[in-house]
Amino acid sequence: MAATPAGRPRDPEVDERITRAAAEVYGAEGWARFSVDAVARRAGVGKASIYLRWPNKEALLAAALATRLAGVRDIDTGSVRDDLVALAGQVLHAFLDESGGAMLRLMLEVESLPAGQEHLDRFLQSQAAAARAIVHRGIDRGQLSGDTSVTLLLNTISGGALNHALTTPARLRAKVAAGADRYAEELVDFVLASVTVPS
Amino acid sequence: MAATPAGRPRDPEVDERITRAAAEVYGAEGWARFSVDAVARRAGVGKASIYLRWPNKEALLAAALATRLAGVRDIDTGSVRDDLVALAGQVLHAFLDESGGAMLRLMLEVESLPAGQEHLDRFLQSQAAAARAIVHRGIDRGQLSGDTSVTLLLNTISGGALNHALTTPARLRAKVAAGADRYAEELVDFVLASVTVPS
Repeated sequence: MAATPAGRPRDPEVDERITRAAAEVYGAEGWARFSVDAVARRAGVGKASIYLRWPNKEALLAAALATRLAGVRDIDTGSVRDDLVALAGQVLHAFLDESGGAMLRLMLEVESLPAGQEHLDRFLQSQAAAARAIVHRGIDRGQLSGDTSVTLLLNTISGGALNHALTTPARLRAKVAAGADRYAEELVDFVLASVTVPS
Repeated sequence: MAATPAGRPRDPEVDERITRAAAEVYGAEGWARFSVDAVARRAGVGKASIYLRWPNKEALLAAALATRLAGVRDIDTGSVRDDLVALAGQVLHAFLDESGGAMLRLMLEVESLPAGQEHLDRFLQSQAAAARAIVHRGIDRGQLSGDTSVTLLLNTISGGALNHALTTPARLRAKVAAGADRYAEELVDFVLASVTVPS
């Protein structure tokens, strides 16, 4: 743990409060209106506490995006269906939880945000890596056909999660977030099963 | 056609140029930085030409969103697959064409934009109505099973289109837009076919 110049250890709870507030301010206001002032107010700390940790607002937002939007993990449950449900659930939570606004905002203003593409790529690459690993295990186990498209599987599952989050008004977000795991199952079962009538 | 106070008919080409510029400025800058000045500059017209048509920036953006993000149409081709391809193609173009930034921006800042929810609902409702009509025809024709979920079908197809557009860097957008119709077919065929191995 890093120490302050006075030798007092930094409080990780404060770090967490600041990065969470930074992600929320960024999600609500965007980069053009993002400021150390606004983050300090929302976190309930003094500006000095922030400058002690990060030299400027670029570094503050970079830390917030790195810790709050860390990406998704590949979870090997032994079943392709349950692996995909775990993936869909993580994507849903990334969009619906308190930092969800920051995730959506990042996608929109990736080109005008310092290091925006880097932050977004980290999230997208974690998704793609998890999807690839899940599909390969599914093919190896004989649960998926050998020519399954990782891109289409990821676009329909991750996009289905994103669309669900985007069409949720903010006032219902907490309620919808509470039902996210159930929706993840419905979404994956829908994608994995054919909806057409066998001819 | 409306006439100016001087009796000269309004030029519809200028109307179109202004609403397109307004959608582009909104997509690039968001509501907080949207101004009649910026729209006039981008459209290459004087501010007077805009105020002749719309009393303020609220009315200007409302007109731009109403004409440029008009929603999707239900196209009855006789085949559920081709109906869905037509729907997916329209959604892809809504996100990838020159007004695509405005569509994404609207989804993000719907709560802070005057009448934002109204504009977004018009688009979402046009999508949902088209999806419902397509599914009902598909069930009537025996091409879809009777319990097909309209919501999940729409979330995976529309979300699959959205994810494709969002993960496309701006510099590749025109190229990806040119391939949108082909991607719409791949996406629909993927959703309609089961990817799992029949057991």
